[in-house]
Amino acid sequence: MYEFKLKKTVEFFETDMAGIVHYSNFFRYMEMAEHAFYRSLGWSVHPTHSKPDVVWPRVNAQCDYKQPLYFEDEVEIHLLVKEKREKSIRYQFHINKVVNEEKINAAIGSLTIVCSKYDEETRSFKSAPLPDRINQNIENAPQELLEKYNK
Amino acid sequence: MYEFKLKKTVEFFETDMAGIVHYSNFFRYMEMAEHAFYRSLGWSVHPTHSKPDVVWPRVNAQCDYKQPLYFEDEVEIHLLVKEKREKSIRYQFHINKVVNEEKINAAIGSLTIVCSKYDEETRSFKSAPLPDRINQNIENAPQELLEKYNK
Amino acid sequence: MYEFKLKKTVEFFETDMAGIVHYSNFFRYMEMAEHAFYRSLGWSVHPTHSKPDVVWPRVNAQCDYKQPLYFEDEVEIHLLVKEKREKSIRYQFHINKVVNEEKINAAIGSLTIVCSKYDEETRSFKSAPLPDRINQNIENAPQELLEKYNK
Amino acid sequence: MYEFKLKKTVEFFETDMAGIVHYSNFFRYMEMAEHAFYRSLGWSVHPTHSKPDVVWPRVNAQCDYKQPLYFEDEVEIHLLVKEKREKSIRYQFHINKVVNEEKINAAIGSLTIVCSKYDEETRSFKSAPLPDRINQNIENAPQELLEKYNK
Repeated sequence: MYEFKLKKTVEFFETDMAGIVHYSNFFRYMEMAEHAFYRSLGWSVHPTHSKPDVVWPRVNAQCDYKQPLYFEDEVEIHLLVKEKREKSIRYQFHINKVVNEEKINAAIGSLTIVCSKYDEETRSFKSAPLPDRINQNIENAPQELLEKYNK
Repeated sequence: MYEFKLKKTVEFFETDMAGIVHYSNFFRYMEMAEHAFYRSLGWSVHPTHSKPDVVWPRVNAQCDYKQPLYFEDEVEIHLLVKEKREKSIRYQFHINKVVNEEKINAAIGSLTIVCSKYDEETRSFKSAPLPDRINQNIENAPQELLEKYNK
Repeated sequence: MYEFKLKKTVEFFETDMAGIVHYSNFFRYMEMAEHAFYRSLGWSVHPTHSKPDVVWPRVNAQCDYKQPLYFEDEVEIHLLVKEKREKSIRYQFHINKVVNEEKINAAIGSLTIVCSKYDEETRSFKSAPLPDRINQNIENAPQELLEKYNK
Repeated sequence: MYEFKLKKTVEFFETDMAGIVHYSNFFRYMEMAEHAFYRSLGWSVHPTHSKPDVVWPRVNAQCDYKQPLYFEDEVEIHLLVKEKREKSIRYQFHINKVVNEEKINAAIGSLTIVCSKYDEETRSFKSAPLPDRINQNIENAPQELLEKYNK
């Protein structure tokens, strides 16, 4: 799998006094799609009631804002796997407003995460290979697809 | 109409370091159901790109917490109209965790809102009769139903 | 100790499209004051890098809203110990807007928390006596004080 | 002025179930410092009770995460003016954990904002020159300073 789409409605509490979705919430939208992507693969980033084997610190997050999002807008968050490496993944996100059948791009973002394990000796986190479930089921999106949406 | 049910999945960013949904977010869940209830009646609490005729300040909000909610829990927010008055509405909410077919109550809350209009003269908000669309479409939930869920 | 005051400035991201602080954030303000109160007693509700002995689930939270809060308002959150019991505490909060020397009450809230310990046998949380540091340093606010602010 | 420092304590509700400040909140920290910077110049990004002359949509936001932030950490958000242009400003932020006298860098971010005015004719926002108060009081940080903190 190299892509996933999540739909959501903009909530009132996500807006600010400028009347639009607060810019920090776009990063929450990206993560919502990332986690739903994992669920679609039968995997959870943090299973309840058990310690996760690995954690996923974000090392970089970016967003280019194109159009504001408003209360009750229908939003599609389109995740693409930009670069899968041995111990990290970079995702690309297209946050689109859906009006009838048309999609209007509101933002393009990216998120780089590093698979990490706790090291008892140094008492810190160390990068670690992706878990099998993720490694076997995630692949890079075709270059044409990444570029198509990046114009 | 006197009830509405909204389903959602608990998001990662809604949890806190205690590993559960932060207690303040239950009030966001209540409002999500309230606004979706209005949408189901073909009405928006705050239409985009136009000034709303009335605003809905909250005058009271309460929540009794029964069980914690965890990341990726499936949640149903069940809204009931507790008391419709000329210029205000009181909603009762049952926030339930849905496991298979079973519902486990996580919290019971309420929200009292007052329909208000801006008064140019006094430069403040004054309570005002409910808009027709709301007044004609919302009715009190049967007493048995309110009590059934309040035990 | 039976009271504590915390000052803060309203942040942009705390407002919503109605131009005022979102009602759910008043519950975050209350908790900010609660935790700062503990810090003032040389105690932390959740020490970093160590598992806390006890956790503090909220069992009830309430707020009566009197006046809206706006961006950049100077806010004082005034905590009073309403009722200390063996295993629980109920706090009362007065959220005031500070204009020059005057305080304008924006909301009155309360929060009931239960001191809890994890029970290995039943795999659930059980109420437990307040930790010594809290028990010895917290006392009920005088009744006159609680009433003075409740009018 | 080309720099500003804001101090804050990490709040409980800013953490997530991984026990650290949620990555989206770093963008709220940046904005907190940006708005406090304006206040220090006697200017508000959005005066209460009056329509602002200009609005400041974010066109780009980025963050490189170096170290996690924990509950009750003392944080300093150091803003530097990276590039002032006719109609836009790019800020650089260093989010540091303060331990005793030492500063440990937790993240480096940036925010590009465009000064915009509503255009009645096209019913959309158009970039506009910076307001005088901002233009006259803000200048680019020295290149050495920007680089010093970017290593």
